[in-house]
Amino acid sequence: MAGSSHVYQAPRGTRDFLPADMAIRLHIEQAWRTASINHGFDEIEGPTFEHLELYTDKSGPGIESELFSFRRTGGETDFALRPEFTPTLARMAAAMGRGLQQPTRWFSMPWHYRAERPQRGRLREFRQWNIDVIGDESASADAETIAVALNALGQLGLGPDAVRVRISHRNVVNRMLSDLGVADDKVTAAQDLLDKRDRIDASAFKEKAAALGLDAAAIERFQAMGAEPVPASTDPATLAEAWSVPAETLEELVALRDELAARDLLDACEWDMSVVRGLAYYTGCVWEIHEASGNERAIAGGGRYDTLVESFGGPSVPACGFGMGDVVLELVLQDRGLLGDGTDLLPRPDAFIVCLDEAADAQVVPMLTSLRNAGLHARASDKATRNLGKLLKDAGRCQARHAVILGEELAKGMVQVKDLDSGEQQAIQASELVSHFGAG
Amino acid sequence: MAGSSHVYQAPRGTRDFLPADMAIRLHIEQAWRTASINHGFDEIEGPTFEHLELYTDKSGPGIESELFSFRRTGGETDFALRPEFTPTLARMAAAMGRGLQQPTRWFSMPWHYRAERPQRGRLREFRQWNIDVIGDESASADAETIAVALNALGQLGLGPDAVRVRISHRNVVNRMLSDLGVADDKVTAAQDLLDKRDRIDASAFKEKAAALGLDAAAIERFQAMGAEPVPASTDPATLAEAWSVPAETLEELVALRDELAARDLLDACEWDMSVVRGLAYYTGCVWEIHEASGNERAIAGGGRYDTLVESFGGPSVPACGFGMGDVVLELVLQDRGLLGDGTDLLPRPDAFIVCLDEAADAQVVPMLTSLRNAGLHARASDKATRNLGKLLKDAGRCQARHAVILGEELAKGMVQVKDLDSGEQQAIQASELVSHFGAG
Repeated sequence: MAGSSHVYQAPRGTRDFLPADMAIRLHIEQAWRTASINHGFDEIEGPTFEHLELYTDKSGPGIESELFSFRRTGGETDFALRPEFTPTLARMAAAMGRGLQQPTRWFSMPWHYRAERPQRGRLREFRQWNIDVIGDESASADAETIAVALNALGQLGLGPDAVRVRISHRNVVNRMLSDLGVADDKVTAAQDLLDKRDRIDASAFKEKAAALGLDAAAIERFQAMGAEPVPASTDPATLAEAWSVPAETLEELVALRDELAARDLLDACEWDMSVVRGLAYYTGCVWEIHEASGNERAIAGGGRYDTLVESFGGPSVPACGFGMGDVVLELVLQDRGLLGDGTDLLPRPDAFIVCLDEAADAQVVPMLTSLRNAGLHARASDKATRNLGKLLKDAGRCQARHAVILGEELAKGMVQVKDLDSGEQQAIQASELVSHFGAG
Repeated sequence: MAGSSHVYQAPRGTRDFLPADMAIRLHIEQAWRTASINHGFDEIEGPTFEHLELYTDKSGPGIESELFSFRRTGGETDFALRPEFTPTLARMAAAMGRGLQQPTRWFSMPWHYRAERPQRGRLREFRQWNIDVIGDESASADAETIAVALNALGQLGLGPDAVRVRISHRNVVNRMLSDLGVADDKVTAAQDLLDKRDRIDASAFKEKAAALGLDAAAIERFQAMGAEPVPASTDPATLAEAWSVPAETLEELVALRDELAARDLLDACEWDMSVVRGLAYYTGCVWEIHEASGNERAIAGGGRYDTLVESFGGPSVPACGFGMGDVVLELVLQDRGLLGDGTDLLPRPDAFIVCLDEAADAQVVPMLTSLRNAGLHARASDKATRNLGKLLKDAGRCQARHAVILGEELAKGMVQVKDLDSGEQQAIQASELVSHFGAG
């Protein structure tokens, strides 16, 4: 039996959410949900843990080290906490069989878990918003997923100038790698190296590029790949020349450009062929959203993955989407001063009752009750004082919109209502409190 | 690599939430959150899993069989998925030390996990609403927790006639047991037996009661304990006589009655001294909410637990509260026809765009974009048809409020807006669509 002297800790890489922390998380989730709904996505959710095989069948047992996998004490089945949502999504789509409408537009925003070393922007337990369009192979679907992501960020104060969508395409990247002289069996290794480019020094990069069989001139071109992102509005002929690829390689990318333009999103987007993000997984465009100055890790990552749902046991359908976690996003919002300490995001009481007269004390609870029954957020002071200043400070601390002041005039059925934003005060009938606050 | 022929299953006792299922869950959560906020509670949350010792230090290793406890493959620390919220709450309260305001009113509504055999009303993964008042020993706090529970149920359609709050009190139960002749060291066993009374037959009950040292007359009185619940409005003298306990035993219960009366809740409440619900855990009143006809398990359970927060490493503070899970509640709501299949609870599109004219096709996406940028829920048909009837059926299927019909008149800047509830239709300027729907 532990006494009060023992202080327990939250597991490493997880978080306790006190009210102001929670208000920040709900603020982010509200933007995700509103953007999703307004763009015609339906919310779904699955279990927090799945059978381990759902993850290892596809990715091999190597993935176990990144999972919170477990066998319950005394149990016979292995489970793992969800590291990503796609396997669950594919399982649900498969279970629906022919009942699965095409296209289906789903979103979810549950907890995810990764058994990594916690660091800035990466925790072991995080909230992730997942958007998926299943059964639509058009570039319109890709553009729609980018649109919904940017809409949510815009709601949070990250407008088109605050973020950059860096878009790459498997067809272009693979063509460029092939032109550099990368052999087919070295493509994945070359993609990995491209992905790491910014995190290793130039000489290490050259050495590894040489090991891929590239000559000095090719290494130089490889190093320059995507070093200068190109505005998404650039015309196809210029792109084909800049990347030395034939025009037909750019067909999907040009279609995506037109769909982004129809949504007025071109200014926030750029082509960046160094964006790799697990190209083995993606089959078409691949994109990341970054804070405009490049601070922090990627805010979101997505693309097209036409074979993924089937590979997890789902139907053979084209699909695209993205994931956006809460950890990096909150850092970016904090960096830009868009959240404060969260207290301004807490729900504001409509009415905060303070009682200055002992004879009125018995009316506080019935008054709270009638306000709450009418759907209003009503609080009263817990302080054992009749000092109006102290009581109003209490009301201000929880950001109440109005103080309802009970005094001697309550004997005549009257209360004072003080608007705590404007400072205006008026006497009203106690019986009209509910209608005064516009409810009932 | 699994092919599409392999169909994965969700783990036993967990649920997949397709959009209509999710709409039901969100409907319930919305009532919980609204009631909590309106009653002045602040939302918090903690990690999904905790160090195993947080649970076993208090309850002993025996509890492990009820937990999803696990040691991550290759890890060195044991964890367990959260079976209840109180340990996390106590840990958070302890971490705040002297910064913990008293009273503190917190709520949470996260996932909980129990490694039990799944059955009707009991799953392995469930959502639970937790309400806690920390640092308030008054009967007002107890009544407030009952009020917030009933307020949420009322929002969901379970008014005061649809539910019963069955309230017991440790002081009264223990006094009655003592008067029956139950020795101090047999009190817990007697409580357990009382708790099981409805689930075992009369002869088994008598046998077990005799093993507690009760004579035939005492067994009869024991059997009758709480068999007839008493209206909560009953006056104390009548109660003292009915239960053969001295008036001072009833002090806290009478104070609770007065607080319930001030909140106009007496009619939904009754005294029922057979409610046990782990009296070892509770230190004052103990209560359950049941559907009025007694269908299904208890909807909620709570009470006062003045020593619990300290026992989990928190400060020594009085506390009371309750838990309400989503599984039984959803069954009760379904039994009473209050949910349907959930489709009526899905978010309704403000506008559903249908396009009858090829020349107008290029306007669909920009129109969707401007509606969505204005914060409206806008969809368009995915069907490759110009048949208005089929398209309107599509709009009806997702319960859109309005159809926006694009035809030849769009060349003159006009669209038809059909109110799908009233059937009224009018022509308006396409440029005024956003303001027509009251946003922008």
